[in-house]
Amino acid sequence: MLTAIEELESKGQAARVASRRLAHLSAETKDRALLSIADALVSREAEILAANQQDCNEAKVSGMGDAMLDRLVLNHERLTGMAQDVSAVVSLPDPIGEIFDARILPNGMQVGRRRVPLGVIGTIYESRPNVTVDISVLCLKSGNAVILRGGREAIHSNTALAKVVRECAYQSGIPEGAVQLIESTDRALVGHMLKMKGVIDLLIPRGGAEFIKFVVDNAAMPVVAGGIGVCHTYVDKDVDLDKAVAIAYNAKVQRPTVCNALDTLLVHSKVAADYLPKIAREWGNVGVEMHCDERSFGILKPIGHLPELKIIPATDEDWGKEFLSLVATIKVVDSLDEAIGHIERYSSGHSEAIVTENYSAAMRFLDEVDAACVYANASTRFTDGGQFGLGAEVGISTQKFHARGPLGLRELTSYKWIIQGNGQVRP
Amino acid sequence: MLTAIEELESKGQAARVASRRLAHLSAETKDRALLSIADALVSREAEILAANQQDCNEAKVSGMGDAMLDRLVLNHERLTGMAQDVSAVVSLPDPIGEIFDARILPNGMQVGRRRVPLGVIGTIYESRPNVTVDISVLCLKSGNAVILRGGREAIHSNTALAKVVRECAYQSGIPEGAVQLIESTDRALVGHMLKMKGVIDLLIPRGGAEFIKFVVDNAAMPVVAGGIGVCHTYVDKDVDLDKAVAIAYNAKVQRPTVCNALDTLLVHSKVAADYLPKIAREWGNVGVEMHCDERSFGILKPIGHLPELKIIPATDEDWGKEFLSLVATIKVVDSLDEAIGHIERYSSGHSEAIVTENYSAAMRFLDEVDAACVYANASTRFTDGGQFGLGAEVGISTQKFHARGPLGLRELTSYKWIIQGNGQVRP
Repeated sequence: MLTAIEELESKGQAARVASRRLAHLSAETKDRALLSIADALVSREAEILAANQQDCNEAKVSGMGDAMLDRLVLNHERLTGMAQDVSAVVSLPDPIGEIFDARILPNGMQVGRRRVPLGVIGTIYESRPNVTVDISVLCLKSGNAVILRGGREAIHSNTALAKVVRECAYQSGIPEGAVQLIESTDRALVGHMLKMKGVIDLLIPRGGAEFIKFVVDNAAMPVVAGGIGVCHTYVDKDVDLDKAVAIAYNAKVQRPTVCNALDTLLVHSKVAADYLPKIAREWGNVGVEMHCDERSFGILKPIGHLPELKIIPATDEDWGKEFLSLVATIKVVDSLDEAIGHIERYSSGHSEAIVTENYSAAMRFLDEVDAACVYANASTRFTDGGQFGLGAEVGISTQKFHARGPLGLRELTSYKWIIQGNGQVRP
Repeated sequence: MLTAIEELESKGQAARVASRRLAHLSAETKDRALLSIADALVSREAEILAANQQDCNEAKVSGMGDAMLDRLVLNHERLTGMAQDVSAVVSLPDPIGEIFDARILPNGMQVGRRRVPLGVIGTIYESRPNVTVDISVLCLKSGNAVILRGGREAIHSNTALAKVVRECAYQSGIPEGAVQLIESTDRALVGHMLKMKGVIDLLIPRGGAEFIKFVVDNAAMPVVAGGIGVCHTYVDKDVDLDKAVAIAYNAKVQRPTVCNALDTLLVHSKVAADYLPKIAREWGNVGVEMHCDERSFGILKPIGHLPELKIIPATDEDWGKEFLSLVATIKVVDSLDEAIGHIERYSSGHSEAIVTENYSAAMRFLDEVDAACVYANASTRFTDGGQFGLGAEVGISTQKFHARGPLGLRELTSYKWIIQGNGQVRP
């Protein structure tokens, strides 16, 4: 055990040393490294897939479920996709070196802020091995060193991928030490990593709600917490029913396992009788299980005898729950105020939407709802760095400090004040 | 004890409730409240000074030193100054509601970020009662509720000032509960306050290095740590000696008790023999005690017999020390690299300066030194929100997360993403 912790500490120190040089690399060097990584993900497919096969074999032996196994598997298509994602990051502008808020003060001094990397980013994640590449690449592009701690179940894949990333990066001029993978799968290392303040500047945990909470509560350094989405869509009384069906259908069904998928549908009582049967039929066709409050249950029960519709009464525990599956709660409300009040009580502050043709209702909702992403007339599924035009993301923050919503390259940076004078002294 | 903690919890809840309404107040309402506070600081002088007199009497009885006592004292002049500071905040633009990074995406959705308050700011501070007003006013202007925890020695002054702030604010339309002062001076309350995550969104500690460290290590919520400045000024070999004397003199002497004052003077060996006697005479005239490394001691010793010069050899503990008084360390270096290396080792990441006429040296220093504020040819004493054009500050951050350097109104905010669509769904 002592050895694994010492190794972690020494990797941390190596990352810190590398981070100081990384901060001053040219965009050209960083992009060359990324292109080399993108190429190698394709050209070294055999090596990567062999390692992944080992993980998959062990996972099957250990009885891993199909959903988890699917997240673990790599293949030609997925590697090509990963390579494309890396290339997409190359085409993004380098965030480092941007100068902003610059001005000449009355005393002639020039004052401005210059964007700099945070330093060393730590990340702790589970199963999906693509995270190893995604986060490494975003950290390198933003001038940060990175310490990766993947899940035990993907250790061979992560080791192979990190090897590819490291070799390509260092051959392209990235300082050695900039990409560190913790190879020991000892769980005690996570606890130690959380205490490495002064070495790790920012920690990005990815995983389930309990794990994120554990990291937030125990980490000594700043953490970007997020990824937990209890998302509401409110269908207002002045509504285009077809739009409202399309938006709620998309928000629930397009990818139900992710954080920006719909969990609760709120419907104004004036349109509930018209709207609910429409969306219930669409959702029912693809197997969505609907947990209904009393009023929506009253409306949907008569059509609930259709064999494909799963319509059941909601329990108290259903509200404020993130389902990550084809389950949704439905509630009828009598006003915009009631909808906003329900969201204020149960939201996780991730993504919330209103569907309305009423201008004032839309404006009030956008103004009053306190969440990372607030929508009028669009699916909450859009909450994503790529979709918002950030090009890529390392995660989605539901906290207000530092950055909120999708975290792109800029959110992995800080700034320093640069003051250029000509002998000025303070009077 | 139980009662005091219950009272703290209930004040926290009241602040949270108020913060939700505060977030949507017009700039006009907030500015009206601030103007009313500025007026009352003058018109209610008798009431405030009577309370302050009580603190000062108790302080004298308890044997408080003159320097501490001076920080505690209020008088007509200081109240007028505080009122002027409040008026200056009125004239700053409201940070809330600013929309930035907005764009129309290819699918027609409009996406942008809208600036919102953080919520509830907690602050823990010592002696100087003006902090009660300064921080309250900056929080209100930025739409945040505030929980104030001043020092035991200023409790009567803080209570009187908070009463003025609250009464003026609530009469002007600020929601009741927005400004909370913890009146119990029980030290256990600080420990409890540090755990009030979910109630307090950001904690701003003001005080000595040990206290700040205690808060950073123990607070459950984000903390803006800073205010500790081990500041270096490096006099390069290509230098205008008069500028270098003026800058180092100002940085050390203009206000030696604050965090942006000079602690260490680094001098290139090529100019040390010319420069050091000049600055030593100027500093000596006002009583600066100089702790010299071997080489600078060798240069200054011959003139050190002058009775007004306090020139003594530096000890190992002198480097990286924040003196907050008329003490400076002096070291001769042989290169810009050695100067940057020394700063990297001993800096607290606050304010660092180079004095040079050499363009490349200035650029390298600005580029490579990692601190909140990096100067070429100006005094580090300028590190201040007011001086940088932010209008005011709640503190100076030496961390990289969220905000760095002087924290103005904008640094007390977060943002939310606003997405306006017309029925868009994710393909």
